[in-house]
Amino acid sequence: MPVTLICLRCESFVLLHLEFYINTDIQIMNHSKFPPIEDLRIRWNNVQNSMSEINADACLISSNTNIYYLTGRVFAGYVYLPEEGEPIEFVQRPIIAENKRTVFIRKPEDIPDILREKGYKTPSSLLLEADQITYNEYIRLRKVFNPAKIENATAVLRTSRMIKTAWEIEQMKISAKHHAEVYRLIPSVFRKGMKDSELQHEIEHLMRMNGSLGIFRTFGNNMDIFMGSLLAGKNAETPSPFNFALGGGGLSPCLPIGVNGDLIEEGQTIMVDMAGNFTTYITDMTRVYSYGTLPDIAYKAHEVSIKMHERFMNGKEGESCSDIYRWCLEMAQESGLASYFMGTVQQAKFTGHGVGIEINEPPVLTERSKDVLQENMTIAFEPKFVIPQTGAVGIENTYLIRKDRIENLTRLEEKIIELN
Amino acid sequence: MPVTLICLRCESFVLLHLEFYINTDIQIMNHSKFPPIEDLRIRWNNVQNSMSEINADACLISSNTNIYYLTGRVFAGYVYLPEEGEPIEFVQRPIIAENKRTVFIRKPEDIPDILREKGYKTPSSLLLEADQITYNEYIRLRKVFNPAKIENATAVLRTSRMIKTAWEIEQMKISAKHHAEVYRLIPSVFRKGMKDSELQHEIEHLMRMNGSLGIFRTFGNNMDIFMGSLLAGKNAETPSPFNFALGGGGLSPCLPIGVNGDLIEEGQTIMVDMAGNFTTYITDMTRVYSYGTLPDIAYKAHEVSIKMHERFMNGKEGESCSDIYRWCLEMAQESGLASYFMGTVQQAKFTGHGVGIEINEPPVLTERSKDVLQENMTIAFEPKFVIPQTGAVGIENTYLIRKDRIENLTRLEEKIIELN
Repeated sequence: MPVTLICLRCESFVLLHLEFYINTDIQIMNHSKFPPIEDLRIRWNNVQNSMSEINADACLISSNTNIYYLTGRVFAGYVYLPEEGEPIEFVQRPIIAENKRTVFIRKPEDIPDILREKGYKTPSSLLLEADQITYNEYIRLRKVFNPAKIENATAVLRTSRMIKTAWEIEQMKISAKHHAEVYRLIPSVFRKGMKDSELQHEIEHLMRMNGSLGIFRTFGNNMDIFMGSLLAGKNAETPSPFNFALGGGGLSPCLPIGVNGDLIEEGQTIMVDMAGNFTTYITDMTRVYSYGTLPDIAYKAHEVSIKMHERFMNGKEGESCSDIYRWCLEMAQESGLASYFMGTVQQAKFTGHGVGIEINEPPVLTERSKDVLQENMTIAFEPKFVIPQTGAVGIENTYLIRKDRIENLTRLEEKIIELN
Repeated sequence: MPVTLICLRCESFVLLHLEFYINTDIQIMNHSKFPPIEDLRIRWNNVQNSMSEINADACLISSNTNIYYLTGRVFAGYVYLPEEGEPIEFVQRPIIAENKRTVFIRKPEDIPDILREKGYKTPSSLLLEADQITYNEYIRLRKVFNPAKIENATAVLRTSRMIKTAWEIEQMKISAKHHAEVYRLIPSVFRKGMKDSELQHEIEHLMRMNGSLGIFRTFGNNMDIFMGSLLAGKNAETPSPFNFALGGGGLSPCLPIGVNGDLIEEGQTIMVDMAGNFTTYITDMTRVYSYGTLPDIAYKAHEVSIKMHERFMNGKEGESCSDIYRWCLEMAQESGLASYFMGTVQQAKFTGHGVGIEINEPPVLTERSKDVLQENMTIAFEPKFVIPQTGAVGIENTYLIRKDRIENLTRLEEKIIELN
């Protein structure tokens, strides 16, 4: 594949490195992993439609998540999306031109001159990612463009990303398939006398060997985690600082979430809630295993969660997210298990959330949500209970909202599976 | 251990959850993992000294990294450090009081009233983390306090964190010990016909089973990575968008760094550069393995890197970071290998960096640095070469700058080790 390096700023740089391209055998990323241009165009149009509603002239993006959404790859630099037409990819690194939309820059201050040379007008109303970039980055970009008005690109992009394109749905289906395959193998790596952390590491290893990308992206400062969490027994009750549905004490005060290194004891549940990041698009899925027999209340609460999933799947496009949260609470109350619903010491105030490039996308199934289910949303639904002394129960699936029905992407046995 | 919940804002909340504390057996985090109070006091004093130099009345911290530095744990909330005395921990979650410095709040807007009730003056000059928190978070906190002047807490905290306390150095030594132990085991998990990604996953598994915490923290937006990277053969040349010394194509355009899934071929090097996060304090360490015999130039370049390390260890407190970078470049030039130094297609412009809670702390060994080596700095020194077709060579160690000498914390065979 021929590589064209177009740099409007530093020609010597290009020549130097062209020499390397000629003399060495550089590996170019596998282009089959990129979304087709028609799919990117749909995303640009969606964002541009939202921009025109608030009279924004342009959008400047620098978070990895939104750069990926608008270009299909991650690079160091900026995406400039004008009110119509294609975006410009202002790339600092890596110095590989992937397509004709790429322009190399050294610093964001280079951008306005390049825009003028290309015949773009200077934006008087600009979108910046106010909930993603740091204060100093924002101030720097504001100074570069000095627009009359700035709106929040984070809100616009997160809303656009709620509705998945055909290619994005395809990616989620691939993740879901691998996710379920790995969960099916979990009983094979369990051994009596294991610590919760040892089981977690075996599952992580299974995931990585089956193509997990390792990290997963989260929105906001407050979502530190690794590849997901496993909660065994009473550790499921320990509250955590993070915005996940459940907690766990963690292995260190620097990462107080998930496994705490305790032995897995008989009569306890093991809840596995790992991120299915086998593509850029993550599925979210929880299954529960038991070591030995559990008290009846644990099986009962698990059944209530499964019934909530049945009711969720009987819903449809247009159902309100706050209604879903409310009928979950009602069902928990009717079953007499409300004080165990979504935790005990600290109870999460949501029962599900959008999922895609990030694990925590809108909409959120919470009391105050104003969103409704829409076609091509992908929703992780996770009504869970924490039974003191026993552990966490309940399942989580990732669902695709379709025009005529709700489809479960993470299909696998939903009952509590006993480990031997 | 008795748990005292002190909440000045919402008494009903406390009562509800006290009930849970009485009825259930909540797990409290292992306090032996916390730094002693005398060690925290040194950190507070250091930050307060820097504050007084710029006449700041108080510092408000909300990043996980700096919350950990000032309190020894991570929570959702804020640390308020006045110009003298102890900090107040304003905690939103988890709802566990770890010490008498904890005050529970619902939102940052609650803080000023509590400060007044406690007899603190309203700060007229405040530090906020301008390079860490988002624009909208910054604006919200500014509105809460409305101070006459705001300075950058990020810069102050990063400078303070450069010089490690006795307890921090102890933690780094623990990480270094485990780090070296895991690297010693790497040859045992290599098999002929492996993909680079398979070897990486086996090493990750070794690390996790030996106590790696999984994630490691980085400063800035542009440092996505998993547990570290492995570069085999020509993939070492592929430039990446990230601020790491070397690149690699990665497994997906959403995470273009490290292993690319290619088979490890004979005559190639395998460079392992994983993060030693066996405590909150990370060591950084690189070793090189070969599959079969390498071309002479690879061994030669590796020897030049080792010679640079010898020269680094002969340095001392007071040596300038820019001088170190310059003599590295000179040694690379004298050996005729300058065009392979720190990459080929894209060359990193530094040869080392501070390391601690985050993998990329100041000082940076780069041309423009104004820093000098100081006692109790911990520096990852990583002069590396990329040999086209063969792969990356050179080592990285984490060094402790002591009063009388420079100590290598990551001690292990430094030659290229042949895998079978």
